[in-house]
Amino acid sequence: MKFKVHSTLEYQVLQPSTFILNIHALRTPTQTVLEESLVVDPEIRVEEFSSGPGANRFVRLEITEPVTFKIAYQATVEPVTQVIDLTPGMEPTPIMQLDASVLSYLNPSRYAQSDKLQRLASSKFDKYPGAFEKVLAITDWIYENVEYLSGSTNSQTSAYDTVSERAGVCRDFAHLGIALCRALSIPTRYFTAYAFKLNPPDFHACFEAYIGGNWLIFDATKLAPLNGLVKIANGRDAADVAVASIFGNVNCQNMRVGCETLEENFEPFYYNPNTLKALAY
Amino acid sequence: MKFKVHSTLEYQVLQPSTFILNIHALRTPTQTVLEESLVVDPEIRVEEFSSGPGANRFVRLEITEPVTFKIAYQATVEPVTQVIDLTPGMEPTPIMQLDASVLSYLNPSRYAQSDKLQRLASSKFDKYPGAFEKVLAITDWIYENVEYLSGSTNSQTSAYDTVSERAGVCRDFAHLGIALCRALSIPTRYFTAYAFKLNPPDFHACFEAYIGGNWLIFDATKLAPLNGLVKIANGRDAADVAVASIFGNVNCQNMRVGCETLEENFEPFYYNPNTLKALAY
Amino acid sequence: MKFKVHSTLEYQVLQPSTFILNIHALRTPTQTVLEESLVVDPEIRVEEFSSGPGANRFVRLEITEPVTFKIAYQATVEPVTQVIDLTPGMEPTPIMQLDASVLSYLNPSRYAQSDKLQRLASSKFDKYPGAFEKVLAITDWIYENVEYLSGSTNSQTSAYDTVSERAGVCRDFAHLGIALCRALSIPTRYFTAYAFKLNPPDFHACFEAYIGGNWLIFDATKLAPLNGLVKIANGRDAADVAVASIFGNVNCQNMRVGCETLEENFEPFYYNPNTLKALAY
Amino acid sequence: MKFKVHSTLEYQVLQPSTFILNIHALRTPTQTVLEESLVVDPEIRVEEFSSGPGANRFVRLEITEPVTFKIAYQATVEPVTQVIDLTPGMEPTPIMQLDASVLSYLNPSRYAQSDKLQRLASSKFDKYPGAFEKVLAITDWIYENVEYLSGSTNSQTSAYDTVSERAGVCRDFAHLGIALCRALSIPTRYFTAYAFKLNPPDFHACFEAYIGGNWLIFDATKLAPLNGLVKIANGRDAADVAVASIFGNVNCQNMRVGCETLEENFEPFYYNPNTLKALAY
Repeated sequence: MKFKVHSTLEYQVLQPSTFILNIHALRTPTQTVLEESLVVDPEIRVEEFSSGPGANRFVRLEITEPVTFKIAYQATVEPVTQVIDLTPGMEPTPIMQLDASVLSYLNPSRYAQSDKLQRLASSKFDKYPGAFEKVLAITDWIYENVEYLSGSTNSQTSAYDTVSERAGVCRDFAHLGIALCRALSIPTRYFTAYAFKLNPPDFHACFEAYIGGNWLIFDATKLAPLNGLVKIANGRDAADVAVASIFGNVNCQNMRVGCETLEENFEPFYYNPNTLKALAY
Repeated sequence: MKFKVHSTLEYQVLQPSTFILNIHALRTPTQTVLEESLVVDPEIRVEEFSSGPGANRFVRLEITEPVTFKIAYQATVEPVTQVIDLTPGMEPTPIMQLDASVLSYLNPSRYAQSDKLQRLASSKFDKYPGAFEKVLAITDWIYENVEYLSGSTNSQTSAYDTVSERAGVCRDFAHLGIALCRALSIPTRYFTAYAFKLNPPDFHACFEAYIGGNWLIFDATKLAPLNGLVKIANGRDAADVAVASIFGNVNCQNMRVGCETLEENFEPFYYNPNTLKALAY
Repeated sequence: MKFKVHSTLEYQVLQPSTFILNIHALRTPTQTVLEESLVVDPEIRVEEFSSGPGANRFVRLEITEPVTFKIAYQATVEPVTQVIDLTPGMEPTPIMQLDASVLSYLNPSRYAQSDKLQRLASSKFDKYPGAFEKVLAITDWIYENVEYLSGSTNSQTSAYDTVSERAGVCRDFAHLGIALCRALSIPTRYFTAYAFKLNPPDFHACFEAYIGGNWLIFDATKLAPLNGLVKIANGRDAADVAVASIFGNVNCQNMRVGCETLEENFEPFYYNPNTLKALAY
Repeated sequence: MKFKVHSTLEYQVLQPSTFILNIHALRTPTQTVLEESLVVDPEIRVEEFSSGPGANRFVRLEITEPVTFKIAYQATVEPVTQVIDLTPGMEPTPIMQLDASVLSYLNPSRYAQSDKLQRLASSKFDKYPGAFEKVLAITDWIYENVEYLSGSTNSQTSAYDTVSERAGVCRDFAHLGIALCRALSIPTRYFTAYAFKLNPPDFHACFEAYIGGNWLIFDATKLAPLNGLVKIANGRDAADVAVASIFGNVNCQNMRVGCETLEENFEPFYYNPNTLKALAY
């Protein structure tokens, strides 16, 4: 399935500032970037670099004097998702069998304090028979118990806050999902994306859980079809893969994000607890 | 029903220190203290005073040099409880009709941050038809979702912590109950007591909610019969009515607490959601 | 010194709502309300009542259907302040000598978690010789270390947040001052006021510390002269004496507050660490 | 300089459990492990693996039935430290020039919430002329303002707590140092070690800051000479490189740690603000 994605960010820079942006579609064996462009207006030199486990793609630019500028990314991307048939009651992968590269996704992180939510996670989700069922129950629980409310949280909000305050945006839903999964010893990573049919359009965040040898996608917001995502980055949480990290004094003036499909036969895919069919990117 | 209550506290004082203790049974129109005594060994002058809305009874003593001392209280107390027949679906008293002295029990307090738990409280308990049903559902929810675990919390633990960490002792159960009720605009106050059949024996804490013109007793720990309490104090939370407030450098060496009934026909009373019979002290 | 004070609050009520407002000038032996009026437009029945230790004056009104209304208070008030000459190095009043009505102002409260700031308070302020010097050092420390920044905090922000985040408004400055004083066993209470020369005009909050038998006024914001205050209320913290407590669904549309002196010879009074002259209301 | 290091951990396993331990001395171009051994008693199969940016060395073992076991590591290690002469007032490396592998050490992490301490860090440390001076001032500030107090914190304690509560152990001192440095845009990483002359003997934690192209070592506890460390691991904070991560039900029965030098001419090295000589491992 091919998607056309784009994002435009406009900033007013008040003092010399450095930007690190993470808005490029990720290139992976299962996601091909067919074409892309990045335009900065007025023209400013931009450095692209990769970092982190999945070689997330960042750009870095330095603004030395006050200016208002716009940075526009667009791409045509073809992610190939795989439908995984799961067997009921499949246990989480034993810690002893997890690859070293996966183990760190069990650790608590800035916005996903799994160490503080052990008892909650166990009492609510131990009863589900397998790893997939547990994570599905976690996303359902978040969906039912946390209100999606724009503006209710900020960049300092973490899973520990959300579990009490019960409101947030996609970032908060993802962090809470991650924290609860890790508390059950299921490795989980943050996933940022362009999302088809997301309304209102914005950057999206959800998460992947490591089950049966695959990183399966989960989205507690249920705001976009699971097969409508174009991956930007993976990280332990939003601290690793913020859309924009800004060092300086800057106002964000405007942000527009979009994701459309280029084909007609898009069939939205959501999880169904009865079929045990999961999706991997 | 008459109860014999006693408590003995033993402290090692390392430096000059002042103690404020709140261990006397409260005298109220419905609770008679038939006899009582307070013994300090070695003899130290103790000042008794009353303070706060219900005239809670405190003692204050000053130790000017290092010593180990023991303070022992015992009393025979006769609380008279009243069984209140409620009608189903009775609304919380409208704010406009609450007496000024009751209104302050709607405010958030140190250990009961009702302002931070509004959304949680509404989403879980708005659906219950009346005030009594709501508070009963709150105590059941706490009982089912928070583990009673000695030593899991400390004097700084608050309802906001407990709602995430899901473990605590009677004090934490009471604070969470108070916070959730206030978040629903039901006035609620902290209630400390000697409790019959509490095991292991200790000072107990639960709470009263103001419903239909009465302060009804609730206990989310379900560790003692609701009619087996000898009230020590009411307050907004444990900050008002700590068993011991100590200014100085002191080790608590030992604490023994007990409560026995003097009659044979004690019939334990617990709430039953079907009968709508409540208890007021 | 006579002051003319006024405040106008305008609300859009979306659903049936109840308001409790605390905007009346307090009547005390040292503060005379010479004349006052309260006008609600459109006309809505308002109930005035007093509550709390200092008999704070509240009004309560209930709006049963959607409406936009305005409530305007104005008064001429004559507070008489007393200048207290202190002796250097005067100790805090021993706990044993504090009146029962004062003791509760040593307890931690919702927004002033003195129990969590003991070590900070001791390490920074134990070294100052007397109670007044300590509290003055606390206000100076807050003034120098916390940035006054409108909009940086909200109604859930507490002293524990402010000590780390280092920004806030008058309410936050007061809460931090209160928490640090109580951590040093100096009784302290929240003080809301109309403030002369406050810029921009708004309701003001500062605090009183109990020293040498008097409640002395302190203001860590240094935004208004200490003798330019018209007291509205005392409380343990903002939980007791919020300007507006609203139960319902309401937008605040507008708020105007003012305080002018009616005399010409106003001489602003601020503390001077060398003179040890303090002010009591 | 050669060191002999050893650690022995003894656990009582109550239920099937998996351990991940991080107690091996790290092998780096500047740290040679001359010999080492790991003994588990009773014999249990142990798997060694490397993970993370510096290839930290972990062992993993699975215990399938209740047992008490002991794991003992010992090694002879030769770290070569480099003394770096700094020029006064050297700026932090501009963000634009930081290698991608270093950038992630600017992000907030589980125990080092640099995003919440920006204002505090700026107000206290912006005034120091260069990056080294700033970090040195941070370590001095922590040393002076935080009390080293065994048992005052636990595995959930973070820099945000410590900045208010002002007590902790080496782990907490390191986390606070890391958070404050990152808040000033100085990359910083957690550093665990065997430490010569540490008293009482234990695993040690301090941190490295990236200044002038080198990772310089800093220790806010001042409990061990800076040149007396044998590096175990680097990570973003303790979440990455816990000495022991345990999945299961286990009691730690005993822990012994030691570090001795094998040479006689050990000259302890500490920083001196006047000489601007720093140390890199």
